[in-house]
Amino acid sequence: MTIAPAEDRLTAQIAFAVEIDKLKRVIRRNLLMDGSRRENDAEHSWYVAMLAMIFGEHAPPGTDLQRVMAMLLVHDLVEIDAGDTFIYDPVAVAAQAEAERAAADRIFSLLPAGQAEPMRALWEEFEARETPEARFARALDRFAPILANHNTEGGTWPLFKVTATQVEEKVRLIAEGSPSLGAYAQELVRLSVTRGHLSE
Amino acid sequence: MTIAPAEDRLTAQIAFAVEIDKLKRVIRRNLLMDGSRRENDAEHSWYVAMLAMIFGEHAPPGTDLQRVMAMLLVHDLVEIDAGDTFIYDPVAVAAQAEAERAAADRIFSLLPAGQAEPMRALWEEFEARETPEARFARALDRFAPILANHNTEGGTWPLFKVTATQVEEKVRLIAEGSPSLGAYAQELVRLSVTRGHLSE
Ligand SMILES: [Ca+2]
Repeated sequence: MTIAPAEDRLTAQIAFAVEIDKLKRVIRRNLLMDGSRRENDAEHSWYVAMLAMIFGEHAPPGTDLQRVMAMLLVHDLVEIDAGDTFIYDPVAVAAQAEAERAAADRIFSLLPAGQAEPMRALWEEFEARETPEARFARALDRFAPILANHNTEGGTWPLFKVTATQVEEKVRLIAEGSPSLGAYAQELVRLSVTRGHLSE
Repeated sequence: MTIAPAEDRLTAQIAFAVEIDKLKRVIRRNLLMDGSRRENDAEHSWYVAMLAMIFGEHAPPGTDLQRVMAMLLVHDLVEIDAGDTFIYDPVAVAAQAEAERAAADRIFSLLPAGQAEPMRALWEEFEARETPEARFARALDRFAPILANHNTEGGTWPLFKVTATQVEEKVRLIAEGSPSLGAYAQELVRLSVTRGHLSE
């Protein structure tokens, strides 16, 4: 293995830094908490990394919260090429896996050798959902839009005809990563139904 | 000291999580790398935390990069109340300190006791610029808009009549946190002048 000179490493790092700026232009389904516009992937990634800091005590004991944060910062980078997938559309979800893998190949390989692999590994770990860190990260990723929709009178749920039964499937993923956040999310869903912001 | 019951802690954490969503609506001066619109503080905070992952090897040996990332995630939260300050406006910069302190008092104290203090401490550390972590975090915070302006034909520099001499002051702050990133930023400034995107 040849070691790239320092200036080549920096050039590759800059290329990656310029590339990932595009995440700010990938638009998600859910709205900001004031309902003013739809959220983009970059600000969403910041938000869920903050949730890891805020709700760290709701992770299983021994969870490496630093890795959870790093995982959440990178978890949506593949959407620069693959776009955001609406989690309540099963056809889109299936087609997405292939597109995201191709995106990971392209985007992470912009980084210098030795740096591309560990960053891609964070994304792989998030996708595989096998570690407590990945399950907690995934829980926060699912928790954020439920909190946003609850705070915007249902937000995009009625627009996309999402039902409480569908949201409760996502709540189960939250409970797998964090029982206490799962219970809280279940309560938000129940309240949203009571208030008529989510149909059963 | 009485310990708040778990449900009170969770209620406070949720209130903080709802509050900080507002950072997505604080608009900065610089543009996205494609020049399409101005950047907001939340996506900027994600971006600079990513820069800490990407450019970690440009920090002085022994720098705690996890703390750099955490610091960058929270460094702009006070702007929810205090707004973004244009760093080339000295009058605004002076008035800002007081407003940001009041904002920190209000915003961090939404968190439960025991959690508010360490998160506020990250912000205080960033502001004080005394640790290598704070100086590196600050370097990345200054590096990001220079990279964005360089990639958008000067971006907001000509609009706000910013000169190379003014940008070079900021480059010195980058060099204090990271000599190699400082040298690279200096080169970007020189190139921007050569191309006529920044006046001397
Ligand atoms: Ca996603």
